[in-house]
Amino acid sequence: MSEAGDEELERDEESWAPGASAVDRALFNADGLLPAIIQEEGTGEVLMLGWMDREAMRRTLTEGRVTFWSRSRQEYWRKGDTSGHVQYVRGAALDCDADTLLVTVEQVGAACHTGTRTCFDGDPLEVAVGAAPAPRTTGAPAPTSAA
Amino acid sequence: MSEAGDEELERDEESWAPGASAVDRALFNADGLLPAIIQEEGTGEVLMLGWMDREAMRRTLTEGRVTFWSRSRQEYWRKGDTSGHVQYVRGAALDCDADTLLVTVEQVGAACHTGTRTCFDGDPLEVAVGAAPAPRTTGAPAPTSAA
Repeated sequence: MSEAGDEELERDEESWAPGASAVDRALFNADGLLPAIIQEEGTGEVLMLGWMDREAMRRTLTEGRVTFWSRSRQEYWRKGDTSGHVQYVRGAALDCDADTLLVTVEQVGAACHTGTRTCFDGDPLEVAVGAAPAPRTTGAPAPTSAA
Repeated sequence: MSEAGDEELERDEESWAPGASAVDRALFNADGLLPAIIQEEGTGEVLMLGWMDREAMRRTLTEGRVTFWSRSRQEYWRKGDTSGHVQYVRGAALDCDADTLLVTVEQVGAACHTGTRTCFDGDPLEVAVGAAPAPRTTGAPAPTSAA
């Protein structure tokens, strides 16, 4: 079942051929970047989100280590080179409209520069928890229709 | 251990007070948006990434259902209203620099408008798998040092 309009940015289907490299198929934003979600392979924890340009994505897919583009420093940043908290690449996937990358990794030590395991450990928010409505229970079976 | 410069965009610490609402603490980009990673609570699967403005984030945290801002349609989009593939909110967290939101959900049906369980199911990429170097093994115990 499809949800009309769920797709965010439309891709130009003419812009790449089947067999084009993943980097060629990826859709970068106006700044030449796409968000990369980093997930621990073993536990499924979402560790962090970073940004990659074409070259950072290419390095990540080919070098076995995650490389980001640092927006603040305007330079490539290979995770762990300073801290030792390396992210070894285990898998990667583009999303349905090719504008987000998911990278599964083996994380060495803390993923977050603050020292926590993930970048999302420090600021849990209060939420109104949602729940599906209770199923209707009736004694009679649901009517079947030929229509 | 901290990694100098890992932090991407610096937050203006003066711009919010302790106790400020999560929406007030969140750092939106120049378009007034932040990326929201949606993760299935039960399985840990990363389902999709969407974008939220202040109001979409407020609704998501308070209404029990995930609401995005659709960049292509320039309107709010409450996940599942068209498809039935509702995302019930179970938890949320801001990351260390408050410019990314992680929302854990109970996903009804397919998260992706293409009909797949997640938006990352359709395009797995070839990667060079990285691995930590094998530990050095020596017969002698490591020397201890008083230094």
